[in-house]
Amino acid sequence: MTAAEARQLALGYLGRAGVVITPAEAGRIEVADFGLGELERSGLQILTYINTERVCAKELVLLPRQTCPEHRHPPVAGVPGKEETFRCRWGEVYLYVPGDAVAPGDARAVPPRGRDAAYTVWHEVVLRPGEQYTIYPDTLHWFQAGDEGAVVSEFSTRSRDESDVFTDPEIRRVPES
Amino acid sequence: MTAAEARQLALGYLGRAGVVITPAEAGRIEVADFGLGELERSGLQILTYINTERVCAKELVLLPRQTCPEHRHPPVAGVPGKEETFRCRWGEVYLYVPGDAVAPGDARAVPPRGRDAAYTVWHEVVLRPGEQYTIYPDTLHWFQAGDEGAVVSEFSTRSRDESDVFTDPEIRRVPES
Repeated sequence: MTAAEARQLALGYLGRAGVVITPAEAGRIEVADFGLGELERSGLQILTYINTERVCAKELVLLPRQTCPEHRHPPVAGVPGKEETFRCRWGEVYLYVPGDAVAPGDARAVPPRGRDAAYTVWHEVVLRPGEQYTIYPDTLHWFQAGDEGAVVSEFSTRSRDESDVFTDPEIRRVPES
Repeated sequence: MTAAEARQLALGYLGRAGVVITPAEAGRIEVADFGLGELERSGLQILTYINTERVCAKELVLLPRQTCPEHRHPPVAGVPGKEETFRCRWGEVYLYVPGDAVAPGDARAVPPRGRDAAYTVWHEVVLRPGEQYTIYPDTLHWFQAGDEGAVVSEFSTRSRDESDVFTDPEIRRVPES
């Protein structure tokens, strides 16, 4: 799947979620494959509405079973890391954070093939439309959409993607020039 | 109109905007009449999703021609005032901020009857679904829905309603006990 194809699919999901966006926004939906080259499994489509020094808001679109890999947001230059609230708007999303782990084999999500070692937190939070969860700074987390895909609103402090720390050493969040 | 009636109407608008909320959220929609006792003219229905030390996100529902009165968010205890982005999701909203004023009589909004003196900024911003505008701290602003009402998402730093400064001296944002 190409980034252009993923972007086109994301537009369909936003429409089903009832999220209205402008033509300019449609053209700048970010497709993140985290440098892994397996977009259908490890990836995320992102529409950033606003990202100032203090506030950020986005819509995240996940294709069916697409996974945002495990990562955390550390402090940057003395400022606490990013705090984010995920609110499910459409579909279903499985979010994993530190805490009591689900029993092996019971988790609703399965890590992308061959990458199990990079998924270390297993406290499961299921988010359906209207449900939300807040992740405080520097807390490991990852999430995967259910079989129908998902649209998730993110409300947060400033996004500094280049500072994110991923568990999987193969990941490159920001393309290297 | 009672607060309960306004809350019920707000649920209808959220549904039309495609915003899914939980039953618990439906029960805690805030109805603000700013102490003026003229809710249909001066008022706002608010569903706060999250309000931490750093981040706040809300849905604002305005009934047809309902107005959120002019105010600003000053610094509090050395922290810059609230910064907020309004994103129209449904309907139409007319937002007024400092800057080049519309010609008298040309504005799309009309201040609530008898309160003109409390509306002093007249640079007009029209927001339709998918359009947004960011208001930086300590900047006077007010807004009114069009004839159909409006649903507006707000992404901001922490809300401290008790610190808001309204132009109209009769306004009480937080009910006094």
